[in-house]
Amino acid sequence: MIIDIHGHYTTEPAALFAFRDKQLAGLADPARRPTTTDLGLSDDMLIQSVQRQLAFQKERGSDLTIFSPRASGMAHHVGTVAVSEEWTKLSNDLISRICHLLPTNFAPVGQLPQSPGVSPKNCLAELERLVGLGFVGVNLNPDPSGGYWTDPPLTDTYWYPLYEAMVAHNMPAMIHVTSSCNPNFHATGAHYINADTTAFMQLLQGDLFKDFPELKFVIPHGGGAVPFHWGRYRGLGMMMKKPPLAEHLLKNVFFDTCVYHYPGIRLMTEVVPVDNILFASEMIGAVQGVDPETGHYFDDTKRYIDQVATLDEESRYKIFEGNARHVYPRLAAWIEMSKENAA
Amino acid sequence: MIIDIHGHYTTEPAALFAFRDKQLAGLADPARRPTTTDLGLSDDMLIQSVQRQLAFQKERGSDLTIFSPRASGMAHHVGTVAVSEEWTKLSNDLISRICHLLPTNFAPVGQLPQSPGVSPKNCLAELERLVGLGFVGVNLNPDPSGGYWTDPPLTDTYWYPLYEAMVAHNMPAMIHVTSSCNPNFHATGAHYINADTTAFMQLLQGDLFKDFPELKFVIPHGGGAVPFHWGRYRGLGMMMKKPPLAEHLLKNVFFDTCVYHYPGIRLMTEVVPVDNILFASEMIGAVQGVDPETGHYFDDTKRYIDQVATLDEESRYKIFEGNARHVYPRLAAWIEMSKENAA
Repeated sequence: MIIDIHGHYTTEPAALFAFRDKQLAGLADPARRPTTTDLGLSDDMLIQSVQRQLAFQKERGSDLTIFSPRASGMAHHVGTVAVSEEWTKLSNDLISRICHLLPTNFAPVGQLPQSPGVSPKNCLAELERLVGLGFVGVNLNPDPSGGYWTDPPLTDTYWYPLYEAMVAHNMPAMIHVTSSCNPNFHATGAHYINADTTAFMQLLQGDLFKDFPELKFVIPHGGGAVPFHWGRYRGLGMMMKKPPLAEHLLKNVFFDTCVYHYPGIRLMTEVVPVDNILFASEMIGAVQGVDPETGHYFDDTKRYIDQVATLDEESRYKIFEGNARHVYPRLAAWIEMSKENAA
Repeated sequence: MIIDIHGHYTTEPAALFAFRDKQLAGLADPARRPTTTDLGLSDDMLIQSVQRQLAFQKERGSDLTIFSPRASGMAHHVGTVAVSEEWTKLSNDLISRICHLLPTNFAPVGQLPQSPGVSPKNCLAELERLVGLGFVGVNLNPDPSGGYWTDPPLTDTYWYPLYEAMVAHNMPAMIHVTSSCNPNFHATGAHYINADTTAFMQLLQGDLFKDFPELKFVIPHGGGAVPFHWGRYRGLGMMMKKPPLAEHLLKNVFFDTCVYHYPGIRLMTEVVPVDNILFASEMIGAVQGVDPETGHYFDDTKRYIDQVATLDEESRYKIFEGNARHVYPRLAAWIEMSKENAA
């Protein structure tokens, strides 16, 4: 089984964007607020909306995508706490419906109703609701300000109530920022990658996993700059008198394979322990297009992994399936459910 | 000749720190301001202060280090415009003295008197002064706020007066942030690397080099996350309808080799054209210590380059000397002067 742990719903129907426009227009003029959260989307319309993802799964040879709302769409920095909550619930409900309609193809991960400067306690009710809906994890935004980084680091006790709930429910988080309102940071070319690097360094500096030995984070986009600078991070850890990375972090921190060329993927497999690498493509995501150097889609990351000759069968199983089952413990129940439904 | 293009003066005498303490204390209590900028440092004391660098040059086999003030020491976000100007002048003067005392070992690069929200026009006088002192380049901080990124991107016309002066004087800039006052960003583990990635993406998004075809930037620390995500950047460039990287950026943007493990350096040489890679170690810098996996210093980057079997003699010449002479056109005169002095 090939599990792609990083897919966002980036082919949303126009009705969702129309709702969002009205919702945000309503901040300026309450008369423009949407009058209902019923988008009028039938099950057929939702299934139609993910046909490209299904076709890519088939073409590229993956089975199950861990599926969450569009990352740049979360936009926690926009609007009020109430807006964030309404938008989050609506976005998660669409993910829930799609995944329950196509449970062998998609397993749900939710966004959280974060807002800059607002305690993550605010997210607990939605987390509980997601658990009830069968979600297998959440996306946690380490910078709800959208590029100004005004909230505390991930190692701050500020975040602990959320971590307690995550651990209690066996819910891991992918650390994923949303769009940037800082003109210095292109979203997918700078802000995403910087956030990955930043999160790893925060975790290296701190001792969070002493307090939460069961907490699990996935750092997407191959861990930002981290594998490329693996020597730097090993050296900085030593200078800070931390235990080796394997002991200090790597029972809790995992990387996906959203790195869009073969040399990058090969580097990852050379420096990052195979237990910490989870297959992902972020399909259909940030980089859409065919690499003229290979004639294949940039984000067809399975091809790159297939080319790494040094990976044995056990390593491939871990990257494509085993590690995902380990990091997302609730995935087993989802897969079981999907099989029973199919039977 | 082996030229290391990235060294900072990180072994400063205590007198410099004492001055800085007084200078910043003077913001709160003018009575504490230093009464003189004469630090009482003799030529012998300066030469003594760089003995470790000289020893490392000898041990590791480099000849000339392009030498600038401690990057984290610039701290443009601290104090006033006048403080930044005084501190910059003092810091650059020390570099000038050391490089003129040991011209075969060090060539000078200066910091700029930047301040958050203050036009880079403010830097022109110091740039002219550095030119007069024989400096071969400057360090340009893309985020004078120290981690909040409140100034405009590097492609904004805000920076143009500085670029005009740089081009007029054949002065390239290394894009290098300073310390971070944002608790989210560890300086050397997150802020530096993020700034490298951010600067590259800004340049990819913009068309700066249409306006300044002669402008040259070095992105340090191997370009942050960029080579690891080379496919992502090629793909994003295509999505933004930019010309290929080689045409759009690579006549103007160069990367150093401050990547502290062999797999990272090998990746760079595989994806980045050899004309764009400049040898550097940032010695004595961010990562001090011996890698237990190799038994050698993390920042002995020459070893990693030596290990890349695919580099032919011409490529090695470019990385170790030729590209530095190309990017720093004023270096030729410095080297000539140092030979004449030695003769």
